[in-house]
Amino acid sequence: MMKRIILITLALLMGMATTSRALEPLASWNDTASKKAVSGFVEKVTEEGGQDFVAPADRIAVFDNDGTLWSEQPAYFQLFFALDRVKALAPKHPEWKEKQPFKAAIEGDLKTLFSGGEHALLELVMASHAGNTTEEFERIVTDWIRTAKHPRFNRLYTECVYQPMLEMLSFLRKNSFKTWIVSGGGIEFMRPWVEKVYGIPPEQVIGSSIKTKFEVREGKPVLVRLPKIDFIDDKAEKPVGIHKFIGRRPIAAFGNSDGDLQMLQWTAAGSGARFCLYVHHTDAEREWAYDRKSSIGKLDKGLDEAKAKSWTVVDMQKDWKRVFPFEREK
Amino acid sequence: MMKRIILITLALLMGMATTSRALEPLASWNDTASKKAVSGFVEKVTEEGGQDFVAPADRIAVFDNDGTLWSEQPAYFQLFFALDRVKALAPKHPEWKEKQPFKAAIEGDLKTLFSGGEHALLELVMASHAGNTTEEFERIVTDWIRTAKHPRFNRLYTECVYQPMLEMLSFLRKNSFKTWIVSGGGIEFMRPWVEKVYGIPPEQVIGSSIKTKFEVREGKPVLVRLPKIDFIDDKAEKPVGIHKFIGRRPIAAFGNSDGDLQMLQWTAAGSGARFCLYVHHTDAEREWAYDRKSSIGKLDKGLDEAKAKSWTVVDMQKDWKRVFPFEREK
Repeated sequence: MMKRIILITLALLMGMATTSRALEPLASWNDTASKKAVSGFVEKVTEEGGQDFVAPADRIAVFDNDGTLWSEQPAYFQLFFALDRVKALAPKHPEWKEKQPFKAAIEGDLKTLFSGGEHALLELVMASHAGNTTEEFERIVTDWIRTAKHPRFNRLYTECVYQPMLEMLSFLRKNSFKTWIVSGGGIEFMRPWVEKVYGIPPEQVIGSSIKTKFEVREGKPVLVRLPKIDFIDDKAEKPVGIHKFIGRRPIAAFGNSDGDLQMLQWTAAGSGARFCLYVHHTDAEREWAYDRKSSIGKLDKGLDEAKAKSWTVVDMQKDWKRVFPFEREK
Repeated sequence: MMKRIILITLALLMGMATTSRALEPLASWNDTASKKAVSGFVEKVTEEGGQDFVAPADRIAVFDNDGTLWSEQPAYFQLFFALDRVKALAPKHPEWKEKQPFKAAIEGDLKTLFSGGEHALLELVMASHAGNTTEEFERIVTDWIRTAKHPRFNRLYTECVYQPMLEMLSFLRKNSFKTWIVSGGGIEFMRPWVEKVYGIPPEQVIGSSIKTKFEVREGKPVLVRLPKIDFIDDKAEKPVGIHKFIGRRPIAAFGNSDGDLQMLQWTAAGSGARFCLYVHHTDAEREWAYDRKSSIGKLDKGLDEAKAKSWTVVDMQKDWKRVFPFEREK
């Protein structure tokens, strides 16, 4: 019996030690207004009996991915995946050598590629993302993400994630938030790795999608990925996606571009305490500096609205001790 | 210190008492093959170190709603909602008095209504389900479900749920399963009440949907429900919906009609231990008896495939001690 009591006491003490370590959240955030704003918000909504208390089930937080959780320069990482995929498929498509946008893709000529506009990119995505079964596609993504490296940092793409945002996800989850990704990126491009990297399970990922079709092939049911757009999860479609997948309004939203503006507006317009945050890319040295005039991740209207509505705007350079997990603290 | 130890011991004992009560799951199930099959499956996949062990995150169970969790006779309950909604809107649409299918709807003339086929029903659903904001529609559903009564049982529709299936949901959740609804019914018709009735949160509901559109009305963002089909979550679309919303393959699936067949096939075709169950409506006295020739909830091909593949087929009359929570045990 005594031994048992000692064991229980030990277990309790160990539990306390764990809790105490967990009391240092947001360790890579400087003690600036951004950190105070989010801490204050979480304190408010988790204070039982407080006027801003929100039941755990309603603590929904939504995160954009590109430029909010990981980098999006010099181009969306999924585009690099598409290019690699086109290169891998090229031997089966000799006609691509002379046909745009495939020629540019094979040659890695981003400039020509972008000059083709949305139509060219769409053609590329369809050729590189459709035609497989969902299981095959998952394997292709898994293999790519395990090996492909970012051109500037020479690191895996999954290492080019923001350490302070990883801490934010974990801080919110420790406070019983359910964290969701709401990204313009492909839902099936993200699902195979987000659980490991962000701790977000596949069923909490909302993204753009192509249509799939149920078929029985040689007695085995499969879902085949069709070259048809199903849903583009960007701008005014982000609240649509949130409503479709979650069915409740988030109380906190995190983005970095005008593509996230409607998601932040939708979140802010609910009743009770709300938190909206924009990551402002201000650090050309450690990451990139861009906003109103960028073709990728343009933040213009959003910056004005954030100011008008007193949303939190993270100044990456000043607010973050470090940007990437692989980097030493500033 | 001694007081503390006593308190801890008490807490432990109470914990054990709770566990012991929880060891009587599926109380409304007779000790027939169906109950043994599901118990055996759950035991297998939760046995740590066992060859069929499934990690909690992958314990996904999907449930059809109409005819599987609640009744679907004499017509889908959502149809009664649509009829009531058309009646409520009729004063604003004097032309409906002479126009089908609205005339039949207002007069409660189901026979004429059904003779109009799918097109008539679709017209009715669009007129009764679109045009509002998502918040308005949620209120309308909430008000209706709180008061409308089933024509045969004179009970709230949410009382016409199957007691054994409520126990099944709770049994699975106690074993760390995540339970999902995958229904041909409207996603927004179900979400307002399923959490209270089934313990399933809105974000774990997959259903048919109409399109919505983000708009800013008088400075306030809203989602407007459009009279356009977005997704019909039935038959071969059920695996599509599952893949879209969950992104993992379920390991257990529960249905009652041919409309659920592809969902069961998709579930069964994964690797590792799988469980598929059909509720067979065999109890005309306590509920209804129908299968191969029913226009609602037809179970024909499914019954053959269940037999061929040794899926569990619940004989409602023999397997269930009681059907509804309001009914005494047999």
